[in-house]
Amino acid sequence: MTEDQFYRSLFPRLQCDPAKVVVPPGDDCAAVRNSGTDLLLIAVDQLIGDRHYRTKGAEADPPEAAGRKLLARNLSDIAAMGGYPEFAVTAIASGPAQSMQWLDAFMNGMLKLADEFGLSIIGGDMARTPHDEVSSLTILGRVPEDEVVRRRGAQPGDAIYVTGSFGASMSTGHHLWFTPRCREGRWLAQHRFAHAMIDVSDGLLLDAARLADASGVGVQIDPDAVPMRDTALPIERALSDGEDYELLFAVPCKRADKLVSDWPFANVSLACIGCVTPRHRHSVTDTYNRPFKLQNYGYDHFSKS
Amino acid sequence: MTEDQFYRSLFPRLQCDPAKVVVPPGDDCAAVRNSGTDLLLIAVDQLIGDRHYRTKGAEADPPEAAGRKLLARNLSDIAAMGGYPEFAVTAIASGPAQSMQWLDAFMNGMLKLADEFGLSIIGGDMARTPHDEVSSLTILGRVPEDEVVRRRGAQPGDAIYVTGSFGASMSTGHHLWFTPRCREGRWLAQHRFAHAMIDVSDGLLLDAARLADASGVGVQIDPDAVPMRDTALPIERALSDGEDYELLFAVPCKRADKLVSDWPFANVSLACIGCVTPRHRHSVTDTYNRPFKLQNYGYDHFSKS
Repeated sequence: MTEDQFYRSLFPRLQCDPAKVVVPPGDDCAAVRNSGTDLLLIAVDQLIGDRHYRTKGAEADPPEAAGRKLLARNLSDIAAMGGYPEFAVTAIASGPAQSMQWLDAFMNGMLKLADEFGLSIIGGDMARTPHDEVSSLTILGRVPEDEVVRRRGAQPGDAIYVTGSFGASMSTGHHLWFTPRCREGRWLAQHRFAHAMIDVSDGLLLDAARLADASGVGVQIDPDAVPMRDTALPIERALSDGEDYELLFAVPCKRADKLVSDWPFANVSLACIGCVTPRHRHSVTDTYNRPFKLQNYGYDHFSKS
Repeated sequence: MTEDQFYRSLFPRLQCDPAKVVVPPGDDCAAVRNSGTDLLLIAVDQLIGDRHYRTKGAEADPPEAAGRKLLARNLSDIAAMGGYPEFAVTAIASGPAQSMQWLDAFMNGMLKLADEFGLSIIGGDMARTPHDEVSSLTILGRVPEDEVVRRRGAQPGDAIYVTGSFGASMSTGHHLWFTPRCREGRWLAQHRFAHAMIDVSDGLLLDAARLADASGVGVQIDPDAVPMRDTALPIERALSDGEDYELLFAVPCKRADKLVSDWPFANVSLACIGCVTPRHRHSVTDTYNRPFKLQNYGYDHFSKS
């Protein structure tokens, strides 16, 4: 059973009141109606030592980088909904190897990024484990209800765009030091350039398939158009490595020219990598409508356990 | 360094905007101003396998009980602020020993309790660890701003009341199957019976000291007045075992008679166990104003690692 399959079996049991829960589980964030006009966005993500960062020996990543990454991953989920980040709480379970100094540095990495994004850390819990390092963070944000961008909403004829470049995130350190695309996601939502959006955390093809499945459409991707972090890489790496934390979104075809001409972020590249088609057998195909054949079709937290 | 000391060193660095953050980190929940009239309450708590529940052999606790406990602990934090629980997200990091069936049962335990308390689970994240079982849950609730009850606010002359009874929570299974005091906390807040309140999760004396310290007062406790879960226990156990998940609160002395006569919860006992004094050297003392001398002065997540 994959993570997605487990979630699919779980979601029908969650019994969310549709009057309150506007975006139910299964998107980058859930969105709930609050007493005000904006929706409240909520997401949670975890970081596991020796899975999401290295803990041992000379290769160990600095604790500041791990703390920063935990928050950055969650900011990326807010970005994918077109929201503003506001608050976060964090739970840290540290193993026998983590000193108070380690925890302090971990928190410092998180707090520095929080400051850059105008977010307040308003609570937390600390505990000790027998062995492992496990931390989680819940982020809260908000978005005007008529601007929220979901995974669903892509329509045949839309163009598929991405920010930034893909692949080799672990070996280059991108997975630790990336800048979450909050400004970009907010701008896209505010100017209604995106019918649907997702952040690419588990691999370009896997996350494109999630957007396609949520929208009930197909997505065609031209592998030659995918910007690669390192051009010496095999294209499979860019399509499936994961941990890119870039935005992938469906742009109404009439709005594509304006998107490109108005894009105000000089340091963040924008690329059209494909288009949305009617739903066929496969969620994601190449430009000849063939499914991609990859050993490693993106990251799944369960099947890679 | 204890958990409380670490938090104290951390809090000044959190930089919460006081216009938005009404109750900053350090209470049972944080409370933030939202676009509506109610405050949004947020708390996070964790559950560690073989620390908060047993994972091994014939003694292993059922996964339903563990999932239930994770949510129940957080509901208790909402209760302590006088709030209504509304939403939760959960992060589950499971070890090699947890099967999909285990996870499914864990979620079932959580969902059943969520249903009883009218709370929606709106999101989550799952991951795998090398060894340990670590789960966390972030709960969201709300409370009218003029009804929120904090740890601070106790005044000399207030009476100290508790719900329920204390001690032997682990051996009796109470720590798994307790009923969070949400109805009781909400009722106390709504009828303004509590100047200050806390949920007793880490031991009666330790949590009483937290309320005393937050309020800048002393708390005198009469050990003979503390209701014990099992009367054969040494009183020290009731004062320091922890995991009781009962409410401890400071009642304005003029309101104490009315509290007792109006208390509508026939199945939940109410006991006056002491009073609030001006601040002296010790946060918590007995009725002769002597500090308690206990080996085990409540549960601290760090120093007991």
